[in-house]
Amino acid sequence: MDLLDDTVPGIGTYEDFNTIDWVREKSKDRDRHREIANKSKQSTVALLFSISDAFSGWLLMLLIGLMSGALAGGIDIAAHWMTDLKEGVCLNGFWFNHEHCCWASNETTFQERDKCPQWKSWAELMVGVSEGPGLYVVNYFMYVCWALLFAFLAVILVRAFAPYACGSGIPEIKTILSGFIIRGYLGKWTLIIKTITLVLAVSSGLSLGKEGPLVHVACCCANILCHFFTKYRRNEAKKREVLSAASAVGVSVAFGAPIGGVLFSLEEVSYYFPLKTLWRSFFAALVAAFTLRSINPFGNSRLVLFYVEFHTPWHLLELIPFVLLGIFGGLWGNTSLGHYPVLEVVVVTLLTALLAFPIEYTKMSSSELISELFNDCGLLDSSKLCGYTSNSGSTSGSVNATAANGLGARLAGPGLYTAMWQLALALVLKMVFTVVTFGMKVPSGLFIPSMAVGAIAGRLLGVCMEQLAIRHHERDIFRGWCSPGADCITPGLYAMVGAAACLGGVTRMTVSLVVIMFELTGGLEYIVPLMAAAMTSKWVADALGRESIYEAHIRLNGYPFLEAKEEFRHKTLATDVMRPRRGDPPVSVLTESGMTVEEVERLIADTTYSGFPVVISQQSPRLVGFVLRRDLVISLENARRHQEGVVSMSPILFTECDPPMSPSAPPAVKLRSILDLSPFTVTVHTAMEIVVDIFRKLGLRQCLVIQNGRLLGIITKKDILKHMAQMANRDPDSILFN
Amino acid sequence: MDLLDDTVPGIGTYEDFNTIDWVREKSKDRDRHREIANKSKQSTVALLFSISDAFSGWLLMLLIGLMSGALAGGIDIAAHWMTDLKEGVCLNGFWFNHEHCCWASNETTFQERDKCPQWKSWAELMVGVSEGPGLYVVNYFMYVCWALLFAFLAVILVRAFAPYACGSGIPEIKTILSGFIIRGYLGKWTLIIKTITLVLAVSSGLSLGKEGPLVHVACCCANILCHFFTKYRRNEAKKREVLSAASAVGVSVAFGAPIGGVLFSLEEVSYYFPLKTLWRSFFAALVAAFTLRSINPFGNSRLVLFYVEFHTPWHLLELIPFVLLGIFGGLWGNTSLGHYPVLEVVVVTLLTALLAFPIEYTKMSSSELISELFNDCGLLDSSKLCGYTSNSGSTSGSVNATAANGLGARLAGPGLYTAMWQLALALVLKMVFTVVTFGMKVPSGLFIPSMAVGAIAGRLLGVCMEQLAIRHHERDIFRGWCSPGADCITPGLYAMVGAAACLGGVTRMTVSLVVIMFELTGGLEYIVPLMAAAMTSKWVADALGRESIYEAHIRLNGYPFLEAKEEFRHKTLATDVMRPRRGDPPVSVLTESGMTVEEVERLIADTTYSGFPVVISQQSPRLVGFVLRRDLVISLENARRHQEGVVSMSPILFTECDPPMSPSAPPAVKLRSILDLSPFTVTVHTAMEIVVDIFRKLGLRQCLVIQNGRLLGIITKKDILKHMAQMANRDPDSILFN
Repeated sequence: MDLLDDTVPGIGTYEDFNTIDWVREKSKDRDRHREIANKSKQSTVALLFSISDAFSGWLLMLLIGLMSGALAGGIDIAAHWMTDLKEGVCLNGFWFNHEHCCWASNETTFQERDKCPQWKSWAELMVGVSEGPGLYVVNYFMYVCWALLFAFLAVILVRAFAPYACGSGIPEIKTILSGFIIRGYLGKWTLIIKTITLVLAVSSGLSLGKEGPLVHVACCCANILCHFFTKYRRNEAKKREVLSAASAVGVSVAFGAPIGGVLFSLEEVSYYFPLKTLWRSFFAALVAAFTLRSINPFGNSRLVLFYVEFHTPWHLLELIPFVLLGIFGGLWGNTSLGHYPVLEVVVVTLLTALLAFPIEYTKMSSSELISELFNDCGLLDSSKLCGYTSNSGSTSGSVNATAANGLGARLAGPGLYTAMWQLALALVLKMVFTVVTFGMKVPSGLFIPSMAVGAIAGRLLGVCMEQLAIRHHERDIFRGWCSPGADCITPGLYAMVGAAACLGGVTRMTVSLVVIMFELTGGLEYIVPLMAAAMTSKWVADALGRESIYEAHIRLNGYPFLEAKEEFRHKTLATDVMRPRRGDPPVSVLTESGMTVEEVERLIADTTYSGFPVVISQQSPRLVGFVLRRDLVISLENARRHQEGVVSMSPILFTECDPPMSPSAPPAVKLRSILDLSPFTVTVHTAMEIVVDIFRKLGLRQCLVIQNGRLLGIITKKDILKHMAQMANRDPDSILFN
Repeated sequence: MDLLDDTVPGIGTYEDFNTIDWVREKSKDRDRHREIANKSKQSTVALLFSISDAFSGWLLMLLIGLMSGALAGGIDIAAHWMTDLKEGVCLNGFWFNHEHCCWASNETTFQERDKCPQWKSWAELMVGVSEGPGLYVVNYFMYVCWALLFAFLAVILVRAFAPYACGSGIPEIKTILSGFIIRGYLGKWTLIIKTITLVLAVSSGLSLGKEGPLVHVACCCANILCHFFTKYRRNEAKKREVLSAASAVGVSVAFGAPIGGVLFSLEEVSYYFPLKTLWRSFFAALVAAFTLRSINPFGNSRLVLFYVEFHTPWHLLELIPFVLLGIFGGLWGNTSLGHYPVLEVVVVTLLTALLAFPIEYTKMSSSELISELFNDCGLLDSSKLCGYTSNSGSTSGSVNATAANGLGARLAGPGLYTAMWQLALALVLKMVFTVVTFGMKVPSGLFIPSMAVGAIAGRLLGVCMEQLAIRHHERDIFRGWCSPGADCITPGLYAMVGAAACLGGVTRMTVSLVVIMFELTGGLEYIVPLMAAAMTSKWVADALGRESIYEAHIRLNGYPFLEAKEEFRHKTLATDVMRPRRGDPPVSVLTESGMTVEEVERLIADTTYSGFPVVISQQSPRLVGFVLRRDLVISLENARRHQEGVVSMSPILFTECDPPMSPSAPPAVKLRSILDLSPFTVTVHTAMEIVVDIFRKLGLRQCLVIQNGRLLGIITKKDILKHMAQMANRDPDSILFN
């Protein structure tokens, strides 16, 4: 059902590792739309086709939402099961994870949920007894073995089948959305391998998260589903609109935050984000969130493991520790992440497993840890973190009646002290693990590990503040807000603020971060602490080094990414950036008539430029248009093969009307159809800041430089990026692609 | 402390009712920033100045948030008090409204809140007795009198002091944000009069809301506060960034929805919305929301009157009535609003007051009505809307134990039937009132009246559905979801969905609408119904007429607004739009040398163009640059006045180097400094869709058209808008401004 076939196959497509021309793609789409609209007036079938075409975008969004939600649910369930597999197995069926296993056996009570008879640790299963000194060692050994096996499998699969599946994929997606082509990056193999290895990597206990890679998974789904819709398959700009929506879907399923996901896509990854896409992204994100919820991977009908509800209001003075957490987050965002990609996965896994097993807080998965740290201590909490002297923290924000006598219920007990030491140790380990894990060749996200680091730091600070307030509640500073016996400080909130700060420091998200956190808590109440921490974190991180982890990754890979957020502040002119530079030979041009096939072929062979300006004549270099190298090569090959009588001496014509020719001359090759008659031009005096702005906003690939009507040079996206690198005292040759 | 003074005063400013040049404004700001950055390296004072300059944006946002929040709180309190004043007065102090009056008197119990002795209706006060047949008539009469007085005052004040204060102001703000200049529209008089008359208009009982005008109020605050910051006062582009944030603030205080406000600004009003503004808007919106909450105008520590919490989940089949509500909303968005601006305010007020008083649901204020309609019937509800046979609706979503016997507690009783009839009548009246009120010369918003219409329709449908489900709970269709006796349908949710649908139909908001509603309910649960209704409503409304109420208003006023959402779909070229048209005399140009002061002055006098291209010579019209009429006029006047020896025969030079001249010749006027050396150019073959895209994205005012290096014509924003009007079969002369 394709209405707009190109005459010569290949014209208008792009090569791998090249930048698309947004203007051309959008024009193509408008042409297509016009054609459909015109035809729809002629017949009922065409009308139906036009309607189905208009709704295909929504259908695609629905499918992306369903597929991504289902995949995310599957990954959650599988990762949960395999994480538990490291510790033991369920006798009722090996496919149950620890929690489901114990649910299935009716004998367990609320208290003993963790000790149900159906769940056997490996030691129990192998040694046969349920208690004894060797059990711990056997379980330790099995834990490390499973971790090594999972990590090994993950790295082997990635290396063998889909090298693009490693990392979080967000930097590359950002680059692709800005108009770059990386074939296979969003292909089906990447999807399959990424899904499998993500489960393996997460289950291996490495300090990495599945949230970032879920964005990649959702984008792969989108790209694959695009193949079923001509409108999106054949247009790189339209495809990128869909991918923008898919990244919103990824975050939506990762955090159960559809609005946050849309804002993440808008703020962090997308390049071209029209309002229509905003609305569709929101739809897709919602569908995905509801699909995930109906799968119910956590068995709590919540979208995320760490949904929280706090009841105590915060005090204005608490902004000081929140800002401190923000500073910590900003510093964390500037640690030398990603400098150890050479470390072997297996070694890191071994060390992680060996060191993590003995400590409760490093042994549990990062998201469980975060969930526990965010949690406010309730009446029934048996967690060590709630090990207060009289174990009866108040619930539901009401002042606990029993706590009115004296110092209150929240004085730290021995359980809490142990927990604090373990947490402090866990903080150091998590930080080291995360730094060495990042950059490894397995699917890995930084969201959850960063949040875990922040949450530990926050909880530690929160408990300190809490104890300080309880012990010194008669001091002026606390009197206003801490009545004796009442909860006045929620350590869980500190953990949450710390998590937000660290996540913000690494990714430099702002609004989307606060909105994601808002969707997790569901209350406007705690937005201000989150915002204070996010702002401080971003300012500190920016002051220390302007780049987010994604931008750093893009720069290291030499991708041609023109950052939309950073303003170009230098006072250079187009003439300083254009090629040829002063003193170089003039720019290689074609003339609209008078050149032969041979001459053009020689020019193509001698140069590597991806396009050539067409001028009236060499003597009067007044601009007629621009022709792309790829289109020219394909057209010449096509002419040589299919057009009769074309020889090396055949003239090439870009003119509208044929010039008079002798009848004996070889037939001309007419190429006006591949000529772009409206290339973008700037004058030599145009400030580079304006040129950069034009390139960004219109998504240009190149732009011609003229002075008083004469063509003087050309500026490509690569030239601009090289110039920007030079102005920032970086190596301009680090920009690899065009 | 201004570092960048222009040499000739007036250069670089704009006239009233003109469009700004975004590229120039942004360049000016970058120059300013560069200068400050350079100076900051030289001295400590300059460094401090540079830091304070960097943070001035945040300070401004803080102030806007505080001021707007405070004003919104004041408006709420005043409107509440004056609305009650129509009915009676408090004996404890005339400044108490009904609710506060009864709070103050301790004798009242929960049940009799409405009948406290301190609150006297006008009849009680004047006649002296508290019961009797004449009381109703006296109260009726006083109600109408007060309403007339308020409306009369409002219209007089607007007419006398600030004609710009009428309406919601959102269409004009949209136009201003797109780069138009309307002096005084956001001035202090507009602010003062709008604030006062808004209270009067709302209190008069007219069918209008204060939510839309609050956006105008917030923008006025922002504009006034901008005056204290050089960075924003002197740069029209920067000022518009602030105004974008201010519109987010307006919605934030109107609905207590900071995220929704930011999205509203992004989706509905803003034109240029960089990510930096997103973050700052969010900050300002939050500050405003918290300021408002600390003022606590509704005495419930909520930000809005109609905060809701539902407990019963919705069923998939309910999407059908929700979609019906969406269709209703779409139809409502296409009623012929604004066709009756000639109707006198006093007549409409009289009719409104006369008809509204007897019916409970039209007598109460729209926001109270919405609040009541959104409300789910609880155990203690004495509202007629909860008049079920056994008045014991279940609470908290749990199945009511007493209701298990038989048909359940929710069978409609006589109270509910009365309420239904009154609601149906109120629906008709509200619709008529809203249609005739819109367009009157008082501050008036459409948000709340539209929501009220939708809420009534939704509640009616909801109750019908509920009764249907209860009476036919044994049918297949209801069996799956309605167990006998349980609440399975929440009429409040229907009201909410209906409100969203009608609001969406009028404004065509999508994501922001859903997010605002989400912030009102606070649960992800009900996003899907809201989204279904919002989508249907938008589709229906768009299918019937593509314009939102704002766009219609902009078009009626002939403002030069280039809609960013609508794609330009026609296949015309730049050559079809540019001036001069084929056959007309060539474009009026200046030459870079060889013209005299007199010739230029004659050209200025003979034409009305707002700028002139500068070419090499009339014979070789190759483009050198572009000069604005205003700059040229100011410079020539300045030269005549201050430059010695300038006479009519003095040559005007735009060249870089002076051409050789005889020593006896009069001194030349050198104007290269006002010449824009990098005007935007397109070729004659450029598709208009691309030209429109360039104008939108770069915020251009004009663009020159060249062919093979020769200047052929010029396209201005007005030309484009006229062309678009023509293509849409509208009168091109309806575009009034440039």
